[in-house]
Amino acid sequence: MSKLLQDAVAEFAKLPGVGRRTALRLSMHLLKMDAEAVEQMTSAIARFRREVRHCEECNNLSDEARCPICQNPERDRSTICVVEQVGDLMSIENTRQYRGLYHVLGGVISPMQGVGPSDLKIDMLIEKVAAGEVREVILAISTSIEGETTLFYIMNRLKAYPDVRVSTIARGIGFGDELEYVDELTITHALLNRRPVEG
Amino acid sequence: MSKLLQDAVAEFAKLPGVGRRTALRLSMHLLKMDAEAVEQMTSAIARFRREVRHCEECNNLSDEARCPICQNPERDRSTICVVEQVGDLMSIENTRQYRGLYHVLGGVISPMQGVGPSDLKIDMLIEKVAAGEVREVILAISTSIEGETTLFYIMNRLKAYPDVRVSTIARGIGFGDELEYVDELTITHALLNRRPVEG
Repeated sequence: MSKLLQDAVAEFAKLPGVGRRTALRLSMHLLKMDAEAVEQMTSAIARFRREVRHCEECNNLSDEARCPICQNPERDRSTICVVEQVGDLMSIENTRQYRGLYHVLGGVISPMQGVGPSDLKIDMLIEKVAAGEVREVILAISTSIEGETTLFYIMNRLKAYPDVRVSTIARGIGFGDELEYVDELTITHALLNRRPVEG
Repeated sequence: MSKLLQDAVAEFAKLPGVGRRTALRLSMHLLKMDAEAVEQMTSAIARFRREVRHCEECNNLSDEARCPICQNPERDRSTICVVEQVGDLMSIENTRQYRGLYHVLGGVISPMQGVGPSDLKIDMLIEKVAAGEVREVILAISTSIEGETTLFYIMNRLKAYPDVRVSTIARGIGFGDELEYVDELTITHALLNRRPVEG
């Protein structure tokens, strides 16, 4: 087998969810692409890894020292939405409903995986709150056991700042979800947090 | 959103079977990898696309003008196994049971997709047979409609060389396949081509 192909397959197979079969299919696909398109692809990927940084203010991925959101004077600097990872931030940004700032933790507390509070950007969040400008912290953290642990840990740390409102995003039945297929915990939560019909 | 991330996601999403969500997941994974490992990955992929060639004898992928199989003096040059693509060749090589040479067509005849006989390396195969050294041609082509069309086309062209044996690989129930889940055509074929029990 071609050494060049062998190398390409081995490298693709290092990506998560890519087995040898898929790696071979991806390699073969490269041969159907323009040579320049492949150069562009590989250099964009290499450049991303080499040059991307974490925003020094919110830990979002950024091309500069501060990310575009933190740099934007239109954003409401008194509200911080705390998320686990950059993907979550992007999901919220896509709704175009949120005008505050973010804080990306970089994960959740997970003793099983050896992730403690000091491995996350929690101190950085507390420092930002301590600086005094923040009025509300929205915790948009997942409802996994690790997520809940992280939530309680942060809530405890934030008790030192009683003037700062702390909230979590609403849990309930998603739009388009069929009740029949929703898990019991979510339904229980949705029932307990029922809201009066307006109109 | 970071332009560097945007670019990396857009490039990953050009790969087959990779949507934006997966592309984002792959990009994020790069940040967990060593910077050197990412450089090695992207350069191996770029190098493969830039430098790999097709063996001038059998159309297999190769680092040199002729592939290692065609260069190997131990291989039986009187037998040629015809396959659609390099992946098929690799599957057969993995069995370590075949000692002849290969011929990679580069696809199958598909009028729907605008692939005619001249788009495949069929003339190259016929020329090789015409040269006189070949005694047997094994057609290891898939049983799709396009595959069968290709099979019949090649068989017709090979009729001009009556001294050359032409065979197709055996169709039947695969080892480990459960009869219950095998398609009817395969079962019919397996019944018609039943073999007496030896022993």
